[in-house]
Amino acid sequence: MWADLAPIGRNPETRGYRRYAWTAADTDCRAWFRAQAETRGLTYETDRNGNQWAWLGDPTAPGAVVTGSHLDSVPDGGAFDGPLGVVSSFAALDELRRRGAEFTRPLAITNFGDEEGARFGLACVGSRLAAGQLTREAAYGLRDGDGVSLPQAMEAAGYDPSTIGPDPERLARIGAFVELHVEQGRALDLSGDRVGIASAIWPHGRWRFDFHGEANHAGTTRLVDRRDPMLTYAQTVLAARREAELAGAVATFGKIAVEPNAVNAIPSLVRGWLDSRAPDQATLDTVTAGIERSAREYADRHGVDLTVVRESFTPVIEFEHALRDELNKILGGTVPVLGTGAGHDAGILSGSIPTAMLFVRNPTGVSHSPAEFAAEDDCVAGVLALADVLEGLACR
Amino acid sequence: MWADLAPIGRNPETRGYRRYAWTAADTDCRAWFRAQAETRGLTYETDRNGNQWAWLGDPTAPGAVVTGSHLDSVPDGGAFDGPLGVVSSFAALDELRRRGAEFTRPLAITNFGDEEGARFGLACVGSRLAAGQLTREAAYGLRDGDGVSLPQAMEAAGYDPSTIGPDPERLARIGAFVELHVEQGRALDLSGDRVGIASAIWPHGRWRFDFHGEANHAGTTRLVDRRDPMLTYAQTVLAARREAELAGAVATFGKIAVEPNAVNAIPSLVRGWLDSRAPDQATLDTVTAGIERSAREYADRHGVDLTVVRESFTPVIEFEHALRDELNKILGGTVPVLGTGAGHDAGILSGSIPTAMLFVRNPTGVSHSPAEFAAEDDCVAGVLALADVLEGLACR
Repeated sequence: MWADLAPIGRNPETRGYRRYAWTAADTDCRAWFRAQAETRGLTYETDRNGNQWAWLGDPTAPGAVVTGSHLDSVPDGGAFDGPLGVVSSFAALDELRRRGAEFTRPLAITNFGDEEGARFGLACVGSRLAAGQLTREAAYGLRDGDGVSLPQAMEAAGYDPSTIGPDPERLARIGAFVELHVEQGRALDLSGDRVGIASAIWPHGRWRFDFHGEANHAGTTRLVDRRDPMLTYAQTVLAARREAELAGAVATFGKIAVEPNAVNAIPSLVRGWLDSRAPDQATLDTVTAGIERSAREYADRHGVDLTVVRESFTPVIEFEHALRDELNKILGGTVPVLGTGAGHDAGILSGSIPTAMLFVRNPTGVSHSPAEFAAEDDCVAGVLALADVLEGLACR
Repeated sequence: MWADLAPIGRNPETRGYRRYAWTAADTDCRAWFRAQAETRGLTYETDRNGNQWAWLGDPTAPGAVVTGSHLDSVPDGGAFDGPLGVVSSFAALDELRRRGAEFTRPLAITNFGDEEGARFGLACVGSRLAAGQLTREAAYGLRDGDGVSLPQAMEAAGYDPSTIGPDPERLARIGAFVELHVEQGRALDLSGDRVGIASAIWPHGRWRFDFHGEANHAGTTRLVDRRDPMLTYAQTVLAARREAELAGAVATFGKIAVEPNAVNAIPSLVRGWLDSRAPDQATLDTVTAGIERSAREYADRHGVDLTVVRESFTPVIEFEHALRDELNKILGGTVPVLGTGAGHDAGILSGSIPTAMLFVRNPTGVSHSPAEFAAEDDCVAGVLALADVLEGLACR
C-alpha cells in the first residue's frame, strides 16, 4: 500500500509532501484510496462534502464503526501525518479478515478532505462541513493564495460543490469514530510505549497580525523617519515565545507575508500568523492577550498600525470518556492516555458522535516536516491495536 | 508625456507600480520610450544589453552627452523613481529646441534596463553589463522567483540575449552622462532647495541570511525541543537596527522567504535579506560584522544553522569632481551638493565615464512606495536645470 502512495505529491528537492486539497496530488491520493477500497471489495462513495468512504456492510444501517484519517498534507509535510491512519485502517481490516472476524455492524474507512487547511487557511474543512461547524456560505467564501475559491477548486478536481453542507443523517448512522494518528510530540517516546489513547485536544487558534508601516527606500530613509513594521513583527515574535514559556503553552509565528517584499524597500505591511495552544482556555487567553498587548506597545513606539484578527478557534475537546475507557479495556488497560496540541477531524466530529483516537509513537516528535518518522514495529503495533479496537467495537 | 506613462504597470489596489524587467509592463514602458523618441525625430536603438537610446546627432561620433534614467520599478514603487529622469530628459530636449540651442555634440536620452533589480535580485543589470561589472556568465545565471532565467525573460520579451556583455566602444563615445533623479531622502527639503547635485553614493550591499532550523508541528512540539529559525531571524532584525543606529548607518530587512510558511508549522528555513549602507567603508564593515556576529550568537543558542552570503556590493562612488564642479558653475554655483544612500546607473557608469547626477526635491523623503511624490514646480525646476546642464555641455 505504502509503495503506491509514497511518491504522490512529493517534492523532489525537499523530500516533503505537498498534497493540498483539490490539487492534482490530492486527486492522485483519492484515486489511491478508491483503488484500495475496490481491491478489498468495499463499497466506495464520496459524501456531499467530498470526503471518501469505503464500506464493509450496509452504508445505510445504523451503528456503524468508522475509522480513517486524511491524506492531504501541510507544505513539505511528512509521510505519516494523515496517511498512517488511512493505511492502518485498510491494514487493520486485512488483519481482521485474516482472523476471520465476523462483523455485526457496518465498518467504514474514511479519508476526510482538506484536514490540514494548507490551501484555504482553515483546517478540517471536510469534517467541519459535515458536522455543521462550517457553513456552506463561509466555505464558499474560502480562497487560496491565488484567489481560487473552494467551490472552484472542487469543480476543477471533478467534484460538484453545490451539495456541500451539514450531513447530520450520515453522522447519525455512526456509532463510533476512531482515528489512528502518528503522535506529533514525544510523550510516547518518553514513556516507552508504542501506542497511546487521546484524552483531549488543547484549545487552539490562529490569529493574523497585520503590521502596517510605511514603504520607503531602504538606502535613503533616515532611521528616525522610518515606520518599519518588520521591527514590530520581530519584537512580537520574541514576545510570543516569552509569553508561551511563562504559561507552559506553545505559540508560533510560522507564516509571514510581506509587502512589497523587496530587498531595498522598508515594508509597508508585514502580516504574521500566530498559532497558539494551551492545556486550558484560561491559559490560552492569558498567552494571546499578553502577545497582543506587547505587539500594540511596540507598534505605538514605531508609528506602526496593528490589526489583529482571530481567523480560527477551537475550544478544548475532551474525547468521550466511555469510548475512551472501552478502548483502554480492549487494549488491556495499560495504554497511556495523553492530551495533544494538534487538531484532528476526530476532534471536530467529537461534537457530533462518540469519537476516540489512537496515537503511534514518534521517536523524534518531529511532524509537519519531511523528517517525520515512525518505526515499522510501532506502525505494526498501531495496526494491531486498531484491529483489536475495531473487532471489539464492530464484532461484538 | 506623463499621461501615457502613468497607467502602465500600476497595481489598482496598492496604486503602486510593478514594472519589473522584461515583463509586459516593462515592454509597455519601452514602447512608450520609443514613441517619445520617434515623435521627436530622434534615432532610436537598443544596445546589446537591451538598454534604450534616442539620439540627436550622430550616434557613432565621439564626445556624446547622454542623459536619462530607468523606467522599471521596485514592487509597488512610486511614479518618480526612474521615470522622472527619463521624462525630464525629453522635456529638457524640448526646452532646448524652444531656446533654439545649437548642438555641437551628439545628445542621447537613455532608458537603462533592470535598474531596480526587483525581478532577478541584482540592481543595475543593464548598466553593469555595459560597464563590464557583470559578466555575461553571471547574467545568464540570474533567475527570478519563478525560476525564469534572465536570457529566457529577455527572449520572451522579444530581445536577443545572445549579445549581452561589455560594451566598451559605446561607452568610449560618451563624453558625459548626467542622470536626473527624484531625491530619496529629505536633504533638499530640509535645506529649502529645489535641485541638488550628487557628491557620492554611499557604499552599500545586500546580504542573504539563511537561518536553517527544523520544521515541526506548531501545536505539539515542546518549546525546549524546537529549533525555530523565526526566533533567530527576529533577533537579527532587531540587532541590525541597533548596529545601524550606533554607527550612523542604515540597515534594513525588507525581504523574507519562509519554508514551509504554514501557520501550523515551525519553519525549516527563514531567509532574510539585509540591505545596509553607510557613509564610508569602515563604518559599513563595522555594522555588517556586528549584525552577523549577533546573528551567529542567537543561532547557536537556538540550535539554528546560519549561512550568510553577500549577494551584491558596491563600494563608495565619488562622482567626477571636474564634471560636478562644471554642473555647479552652469547652475550658478549655489546648488547644494549631497551624498546619497541609493544606488544608480550613474554610479555604475562612473567607473567608466565622467558621470554626474541632479536630484529633485522630495518633500516627504518617501520613495520606493506609492506615496512617493515631487511637486510640479520642483519637477519643472529640475527640467530647466537639466536643460541648462545639457546646453552647457553639448552646445558649447
